[in-house]
Amino acid sequence: MSEDNQLTDAEDLQERLAEVQTLLARHKLVEDLVHRQEGPRHDLVEDIVHKQHLHELQNKLEPMHPADIAYILEALPPDERLIVWDLVKAEHDGEILLEVSDAVRESLIESMARNELVAAAESLDADELADLAPDLPQSVIDDVFRSLPADEREHLRAAMSYPEESVGSIMDFDMVTVREDVTLEVVLRYLRRFEELPDHTDQLFVIDRDERLKGVLPLNILLVNEVDVEVGSLMQTDFVEFEPDDEAEDAAKAFERYDLVSAPVVDGDGKLLGRVTVNDVVDYIREEAEHEQLAHAGLREEEDIFASVWDSVKNRWAWLAVNLVTAFFASRVIGAFEDSIEKLVALAALMPIVAGIGGNSGNQTITMIVRAIAMGQVQPDAMRRLLRKELGVATINGLLWGSLLGLAAWWLYGSYQLGIVMTAAMTLNLLLAASAGVGIPLMRQKFGADPAIGGSVMITALTDSGGFFIFLGLATLFLM
Amino acid sequence: MSEDNQLTDAEDLQERLAEVQTLLARHKLVEDLVHRQEGPRHDLVEDIVHKQHLHELQNKLEPMHPADIAYILEALPPDERLIVWDLVKAEHDGEILLEVSDAVRESLIESMARNELVAAAESLDADELADLAPDLPQSVIDDVFRSLPADEREHLRAAMSYPEESVGSIMDFDMVTVREDVTLEVVLRYLRRFEELPDHTDQLFVIDRDERLKGVLPLNILLVNEVDVEVGSLMQTDFVEFEPDDEAEDAAKAFERYDLVSAPVVDGDGKLLGRVTVNDVVDYIREEAEHEQLAHAGLREEEDIFASVWDSVKNRWAWLAVNLVTAFFASRVIGAFEDSIEKLVALAALMPIVAGIGGNSGNQTITMIVRAIAMGQVQPDAMRRLLRKELGVATINGLLWGSLLGLAAWWLYGSYQLGIVMTAAMTLNLLLAASAGVGIPLMRQKFGADPAIGGSVMITALTDSGGFFIFLGLATLFLM
Repeated sequence: MSEDNQLTDAEDLQERLAEVQTLLARHKLVEDLVHRQEGPRHDLVEDIVHKQHLHELQNKLEPMHPADIAYILEALPPDERLIVWDLVKAEHDGEILLEVSDAVRESLIESMARNELVAAAESLDADELADLAPDLPQSVIDDVFRSLPADEREHLRAAMSYPEESVGSIMDFDMVTVREDVTLEVVLRYLRRFEELPDHTDQLFVIDRDERLKGVLPLNILLVNEVDVEVGSLMQTDFVEFEPDDEAEDAAKAFERYDLVSAPVVDGDGKLLGRVTVNDVVDYIREEAEHEQLAHAGLREEEDIFASVWDSVKNRWAWLAVNLVTAFFASRVIGAFEDSIEKLVALAALMPIVAGIGGNSGNQTITMIVRAIAMGQVQPDAMRRLLRKELGVATINGLLWGSLLGLAAWWLYGSYQLGIVMTAAMTLNLLLAASAGVGIPLMRQKFGADPAIGGSVMITALTDSGGFFIFLGLATLFLM
Repeated sequence: MSEDNQLTDAEDLQERLAEVQTLLARHKLVEDLVHRQEGPRHDLVEDIVHKQHLHELQNKLEPMHPADIAYILEALPPDERLIVWDLVKAEHDGEILLEVSDAVRESLIESMARNELVAAAESLDADELADLAPDLPQSVIDDVFRSLPADEREHLRAAMSYPEESVGSIMDFDMVTVREDVTLEVVLRYLRRFEELPDHTDQLFVIDRDERLKGVLPLNILLVNEVDVEVGSLMQTDFVEFEPDDEAEDAAKAFERYDLVSAPVVDGDGKLLGRVTVNDVVDYIREEAEHEQLAHAGLREEEDIFASVWDSVKNRWAWLAVNLVTAFFASRVIGAFEDSIEKLVALAALMPIVAGIGGNSGNQTITMIVRAIAMGQVQPDAMRRLLRKELGVATINGLLWGSLLGLAAWWLYGSYQLGIVMTAAMTLNLLLAASAGVGIPLMRQKFGADPAIGGSVMITALTDSGGFFIFLGLATLFLM
C-alpha cells in the first residue's frame, strides 16, 4: 500500500466516482461543441476549457489509492475509461493493472504503448509481475526480464512456473529473516536499518546457515519480551508451513482455521522460499467465490459490463450450446410419446411440473453434497448414509408435493388415474434427482474431477429427460 | 489462537480425522460386543478395552487446535460426534462452539448441561460471546452477564446490540492504545508489560485524553524508527476507520482494496470503540459466499450433512413450494393452448426448449447485473446502455440458436412454418429474458431490496410461462 495515497470508505468512493463522471460529462460536452463549431477562435476557447476539465480531473485522481482508481476505471464505459487511464500517473499503472478485473485489464493493456507497458511492469515485485504476465505481450516480458537483477529474475522465473491454484502462485518473496543465536536487541537494531518492513510482516522467519526454516518469531512475542533474550528461546517451532505445490485452497482454509496473517513457504528440504500473506488469501477466496458464481450461471469468465455485444456472446455461447443439446434431447424424449399426448393433451400441460421440481430438488441435494465434499466432510463410508437420507427426503417431498399436484390434476382434468400417475411420477423423479445429486459429485470426485463443475447442468438434464420419460411412460402404461 | 495447540495442514487433518474414526469404530465394536454378551467377567474385560479406546481418543484430541476439533466434529455423524464432544477438554468448549457451523452448534449445545454452557461462555471474549448468544438459552446468558466485570458487561451489551451484517457485529475490543506525546521508547517499554499482544495487532491506536482516535501507529513504523522519536510525529493520520453501523460488506471491501490487517471503529464523535481484524473479515467473506451459494439452490441455511430427514425437509420445503407455484402457473399457460397442442402435437415436444434456453440466458444476464450492482458499478444512467447491450446479445443468440432449432423443427416435422415460429419464439423469449435480467435486479435495488435474492426464481418463472405463452401463442396465430 502506498502510504501517500488517500484511503476512502465505500460512500466516499461512490462520491468520487460521481465527481469523475461529472467532469467527464462536461469534458464530453465541450468536445461535442468543438466538433460542431468551426473557426480558429472558437477552437482556441474550447481547447482551453477542455484542458481545464482534464486538469481538474487529473487533480482529483492524483491523490487516490491505486485500488480506488481501479474501481473507478471498472465503473466507466470504455471511451471514458481510456480518458481517465491516460490521466493516471504512470508510476501507478502497474499497481492499477493488478487491481482491475481481467476483462478491463485487457482493454487497458491494448491502449498502452510497449514502453509504457515495460515501465509499468518494472514497477512491480516479481510475484505481482507473475500475476500480470499472462496478459502482457511476450516481447514486454522479455524486456522486463532482461532488466531485472539476477535474484529478482530468479524470483520471477519461480513465480511464473507455479501452476494456478497452487500456493506458489500466491506466494511473495518479501520476508524478514533472522538467526536463532542472536538476542532481541540485535533483531530490533537490525529492523531499524529497514526503510520500512514488508506489508503484513507479523512474524520474522528464523533460518539457519543453509536458509532452512527453524522457527518463526511473531512480532507480538518480540515486542513483549526483554531485549537480552535470544531468538532461539522464544521462537515458535509449531507453525503452519506450505510447499509451493500445495493447493492454494488448502492454504486458504488454514489461514481461516488458524487466523493467520502470514505463513512461510518452504521447499522439500525445508529451505525457506517465500511466504503467503492474508491479503493474497482474501483475494483468492473472493475470486474463487466469484468464479463459482459465474460458472453456476454459465458465464465463462468475469464480463466487463461495458463489453461489446460480441464479447458477451462469446463469453456465454458455450453454456447455451450445452443447454440446447440437453433441451433438444429432452424434447426428443417427449417426441417419443407424441401418440400418448395426442390422446391425452393434459399430459403436455403437466409434464413440465414433474421435470421442473425434480431439477430444483436435485440442485438442492447436489449443492449440499458439493459443499460437504469441499469441506472434506464426506468420507467414503458416509456415502451410503447420505444416499439413504436424501432418498428419505425425496420420498417425503415426492409424496407430499406429488399428492398435492395429483389432487390438482384430478380436479382440473377429472381423472383420478391421472392424479395417481402424477404423484407416482413426481416421487420417482425426486428419487432420481436425489440419487444423481449424491452420485454425480461423488463420482466426479472419485475420478479426480472437480465435483463442483457442471453438476448443476448434468442434474437438470437428467431430471428433465428423466421426468418427461417417467411421467409420459407411466401415463402410456396405465392411462392409454 | 492458543499457542499450545498443534497446527496441521490439510493432509494431516484428513489423517487425524481417519485416526479418530478408526478409534471410534473400534470403540463401537467393543460396545456392540458388550451389548451382545452377558456375564460379569466379560463385562469387566470389555469395559477395560472400552476405556482404553476412549483414553487413546482423548490423547489424540488433547493437543489439537479448537478449529481442527471443530472440523472433526462436523465430519462425524451425530452419535460419534457426541462421544468426541464429551472427551474434549472443557476449557476449549467455547472456542469450538464458535468454530462449528450453526447446525452442528445446535446439536452440541443441546447435549450440554447448563453449568457446562455457562463455563464455556465465560471463557470467551465479549465479541465472541455475542456471536454465540443467539444459540444459547436466555438463562445461560443471564448467568454469564452477572458474572462479568462492568467493562466486559458493557462490551457484551454493545456487541449484542449491533445488527447482523454491520461492522459492529464483527468488531472486537482487543486493542492497544497509546498517546501521541510519548516517545517510541516509552511505547516499547509499555508493550513489554503485556503478557502477549492481542492477535492481529499490526498497529497501535493513538488516542487523546477523551479516547478520541488521533491516528494509528503501525508496528512496521514503530520497529524501523529510532526510539527517541515521538509517536505524534510518526503516526499516520490518513487511515480507514469505520462506525459500528457501517455495512460489514463495505468494511470487507475496504480490507480487500487496501490489504488491511486491522482497522479502528469509532463512534460519531470520533471516540475509539473497537477494531475490526482481517480474520473476522475472512470469516465474513466466506460465510457470505456460502450463504449466497445455498440461497441460490434454495437451501435456507447450512445443513448438517448428518441432519435428520425431517430437518432437511424443513430446510428445503419453502423453495420447492415457491417453484411448485410457478411451475403450476406455467402449466396453466400451456393448459390454455390445449386445443392447439391437440391439433399439432409437435408443439408439446418443442415448447420446453424455448422455455429452457430463455431461463438459462436470463440467468446469465441477471448474474452479471447483480455482480455489477454489488461492486457499485451500476450508475442509474448506465441502465439504458446495459439494456441495449443485453438486448443485442439476446437478438444475436435468438437468431443464431433459434434458426438452428427452427431448421431442426423443419427437418423433424416437415413444416417450415413451424420452423419460423420456433425461431421467432426463441428470439422473443431471449429478449424477454434480457429485459427481465436487467430490470429485476435494478428494480429491486431501487425499492431497497437485496438485488441478489430470489432473482433467479423470478426470471425462471417469467421465461417459463413467457416462453410457453410466446411459442404456443405464435403457433396458434400462424399455424392453426
